[in-house]
Amino acid sequence: MRLVTYRDSEGVHLGALRGGEVVSLVGVAPDMLSLIDAGPAGLEAARAAAEREKGVPLSAVTLLAPIPRPRQNVICLGMNYVAHAIESYRARGREPKLPEYPVFFTKAAHTVCGPDDDIPLDPKVTTELDYEVELAFVIGKAGMNIPRSEAMAYIFGYTIVNDISARDLQSRHQQFFKGKSLYRACPMGPCIVTVDEIPDPAGLGIRLRLNGETRQDSHTGDLIFDIPAIIEHLSLGMPLEAGMVVATGTPAGVGLGRTPPEYMRPGDVMEAEIDSIGVLRNRIVAAT
Amino acid sequence: MRLVTYRDSEGVHLGALRGGEVVSLVGVAPDMLSLIDAGPAGLEAARAAAEREKGVPLSAVTLLAPIPRPRQNVICLGMNYVAHAIESYRARGREPKLPEYPVFFTKAAHTVCGPDDDIPLDPKVTTELDYEVELAFVIGKAGMNIPRSEAMAYIFGYTIVNDISARDLQSRHQQFFKGKSLYRACPMGPCIVTVDEIPDPAGLGIRLRLNGETRQDSHTGDLIFDIPAIIEHLSLGMPLEAGMVVATGTPAGVGLGRTPPEYMRPGDVMEAEIDSIGVLRNRIVAAT
Repeated sequence: MRLVTYRDSEGVHLGALRGGEVVSLVGVAPDMLSLIDAGPAGLEAARAAAEREKGVPLSAVTLLAPIPRPRQNVICLGMNYVAHAIESYRARGREPKLPEYPVFFTKAAHTVCGPDDDIPLDPKVTTELDYEVELAFVIGKAGMNIPRSEAMAYIFGYTIVNDISARDLQSRHQQFFKGKSLYRACPMGPCIVTVDEIPDPAGLGIRLRLNGETRQDSHTGDLIFDIPAIIEHLSLGMPLEAGMVVATGTPAGVGLGRTPPEYMRPGDVMEAEIDSIGVLRNRIVAAT
Repeated sequence: MRLVTYRDSEGVHLGALRGGEVVSLVGVAPDMLSLIDAGPAGLEAARAAAEREKGVPLSAVTLLAPIPRPRQNVICLGMNYVAHAIESYRARGREPKLPEYPVFFTKAAHTVCGPDDDIPLDPKVTTELDYEVELAFVIGKAGMNIPRSEAMAYIFGYTIVNDISARDLQSRHQQFFKGKSLYRACPMGPCIVTVDEIPDPAGLGIRLRLNGETRQDSHTGDLIFDIPAIIEHLSLGMPLEAGMVVATGTPAGVGLGRTPPEYMRPGDVMEAEIDSIGVLRNRIVAAT
């Protein structure tokens, strides 16, 4: 199932995509987090409603982030593709080094925005705004100390995140949080694809186009720490909660890694794409 | 006013401390975040109720964290006292260097626990659990790009946070998030003191006792980045939200800084104390 959150003239609703239509799941759950909390029974009810109910054309609604406001910060991995780890260290004049353990940081919960939202760029805040396409997974049930052999049972589904990063702030503040948490720095969507539709999340092409030009082009099988390893490390001594969003890191090709670095400007259009999920398209605009 | 969240036989409530008593604010707001959202009118109603209503002895209730579950991760500063920045770098064999910009990271929202909660220590998760007493402030209203001259108007009140840290995980994962986000790694409380009662948050003694022995003993005037500077940097391009908790960093004297380092063991009792706020007392117990 391809689950979405959308706005129409009556408000914000949970829905499912069926062909070019959106089917309301208003009779099943008020929002995505409630659906996730409802567990397998909720998903079953959603499936039935998605087949049964009348849909409206996708063009008649506005898609929002599938989880417009997570219950806690979005968790991200840094340096989780070999070529990106190398480009990042090189760009900062440091010796390339692959991480021995996953590098976890967070983006503030308010950074999440939708597949059609514009991303403001304020030159008084940053002059080094960069894109990062990432495969994200959504936790479906609570757990702690989860071994990698059981990890996949904790996943509800997959989505795309664009981990927009202010490189100057990221360096300046040492820890990544601030440079990763500017207003609307986390476009998410266009949908959450439930696990049953993506039996192998390590088998997906992942790309980012800037103004139509392919800048990142890789494969989710190239993750240094794969999803089961991420869940094992993350849940060690730390509770995972239903609805938690974890972005798995970005492949090579970011603006920071170019020689010389190339950062985004108002008018730039990013298209973050992952096979079997879709395209997340956002435009950079001058902050007002 | 000294605001608390407490549990009695009927559930969890918002309250105010009056002498040795707790006065229920159930007629004013259902919880602390709602009270903060209600703005000055809410505070006025709380003040009137706190004077008027009948109280119960503090000993008859259980205090919880004043904000038991924040809306996003707790934001923390690293290296914000000179002597602590030096002890941290030295302990890791690096050249001591004071930060030129605030070092921001987060603790997962689920880490928050109350003034009487036990903190589990699981040797399979960490063998280097450490304490960090910190002055925290709570944001009272939304804002972005706040100049330091206006920063104090955005503060609702002050509380104490013990930023419990797994030093081995903090190093291993490079970014601080994972080592700072173990289960119950953020005791908070015992109360939020509203701004009117602490006209100068840079004038407070701050201490941590481990098993009765003073280990940290400093003064909030020694912050490298004071509260207005923190708010100016944090809000640059990033929305602050009502109810957000920001911990301002810890002074020297942590276990990591001792020669050799000394980490906590089951049975250890931490008392985090800040003048005009109170004492936050938590015990380390073996994880079950």
